[in-house]
Amino acid sequence: MTFRIGLGFDAHEFEEGKPLYLGGILIKHHEGLKGHSDGDVLLHAITDALLSAIGEPDIGELFSDKDVRWKNASSEIFLKEALRRTREKGYSIVNLDCVLVLDSPKISPLKSAIVENLSKIMQVDKSCISIKGKTREGFCKEKGVVCYCVILLSHEG
Amino acid sequence: MTFRIGLGFDAHEFEEGKPLYLGGILIKHHEGLKGHSDGDVLLHAITDALLSAIGEPDIGELFSDKDVRWKNASSEIFLKEALRRTREKGYSIVNLDCVLVLDSPKISPLKSAIVENLSKIMQVDKSCISIKGKTREGFCKEKGVVCYCVILLSHEG
Amino acid sequence: MTFRIGLGFDAHEFEEGKPLYLGGILIKHHEGLKGHSDGDVLLHAITDALLSAIGEPDIGELFSDKDVRWKNASSEIFLKEALRRTREKGYSIVNLDCVLVLDSPKISPLKSAIVENLSKIMQVDKSCISIKGKTREGFCKEKGVVCYCVILLSHEG
Ligand SMILES: [Mg+2]
Ligand SMILES: [Mg+2]
Ligand SMILES: [Mg+2]
Repeated sequence: MTFRIGLGFDAHEFEEGKPLYLGGILIKHHEGLKGHSDGDVLLHAITDALLSAIGEPDIGELFSDKDVRWKNASSEIFLKEALRRTREKGYSIVNLDCVLVLDSPKISPLKSAIVENLSKIMQVDKSCISIKGKTREGFCKEKGVVCYCVILLSHEG
Repeated sequence: MTFRIGLGFDAHEFEEGKPLYLGGILIKHHEGLKGHSDGDVLLHAITDALLSAIGEPDIGELFSDKDVRWKNASSEIFLKEALRRTREKGYSIVNLDCVLVLDSPKISPLKSAIVENLSKIMQVDKSCISIKGKTREGFCKEKGVVCYCVILLSHEG
Repeated sequence: MTFRIGLGFDAHEFEEGKPLYLGGILIKHHEGLKGHSDGDVLLHAITDALLSAIGEPDIGELFSDKDVRWKNASSEIFLKEALRRTREKGYSIVNLDCVLVLDSPKISPLKSAIVENLSKIMQVDKSCISIKGKTREGFCKEKGVVCYCVILLSHEG
């Protein structure tokens, strides 16, 4: 059994009037995340953690923000492609842990719906997926969301 | 043998006149960290890394900052509960690595005392615990401390 | 087989007129990174991830920015010493994943040269080294580069 570690990072600015997607879920909120696609910072960080753990090009290289195909695209497309490549290379997801750094919305009430949806998209047990929200507690206030993700993969033999 | 990875993140603002706790140690400093509890950003990040590695609710869910029981509480309480749940689920700590991002105080002279104390609280060998301090080198100066923690756990069978 | 995880973090401010080094490569850019050494934020983060994974003192402790020996020094010296200690303790690099957070230069066109160089310095296969660049997408603009690195090491027996 061999293992691989991956690190995802993403940051998106808030934009009035855009729908907010986090983990593939449409969230009731007064603003959404800027971006060429749907701006789903959580799916982007997970996608990038997977892609780099398996030594593939990153999300920006595979899904250019100059490419009209990804204009307002669902970020599930990106994650599913990363998962396809992960399985193609024979890797399995051991577990992943994500931190969303943002002032609002509160992540705690959304957690179970997001984990449920990630579990469905990624076809891994909910016990292998962790997300949590953290604030910056008033200093260096950011008008957006930063997301970190670490992932552990395994490979037979 | 199976493994699990966890990621902790926490950020607290400095506040004049509050005692500064880092890793359960009272540090001589002219300001401390704001927070409902003792504001120990390092213990909070480790606690959250553990809790999410084992798929438990996060520190904010288990120890609400609305709960008077945790008003000025020692954050060792939070870490010890995370450790209790870790062992209850049969996990052992392989190692953990923490980064404190702050301008002052300098972490280097405090390192061995903090690692010693964490080793005692967590009942793991000092060689399995790493902490280091980093500054932002003058740009985007922050009036607080950000802490990152990655942790690796193992489980028999 | 046992494993160890490490987390590297570094941040350097841009400075007009200094050469820019990333991953040991001299990059054509109108500014470089401030620092006592060559300011190579990527090599520093990898060095620190390695050192803490194996329980050694951190880069600031081993290579003080008060020491004239490291004035404008190539950061390869630091990474090579961390690698020497890693091997001395019997650890091998499983893989590492690095994120550079910066507005410019774009990392994508530099990636293969940087990975190639890291592979040579670290004597590990290119498939075990991942780097990617991310921007902050316009909010909380930073006049420098932040680098995160996670690393996984293994040890026989
Ligand atoms: Mg993105
Ligand atoms: Mg906290
Ligand atoms: Mg540095």
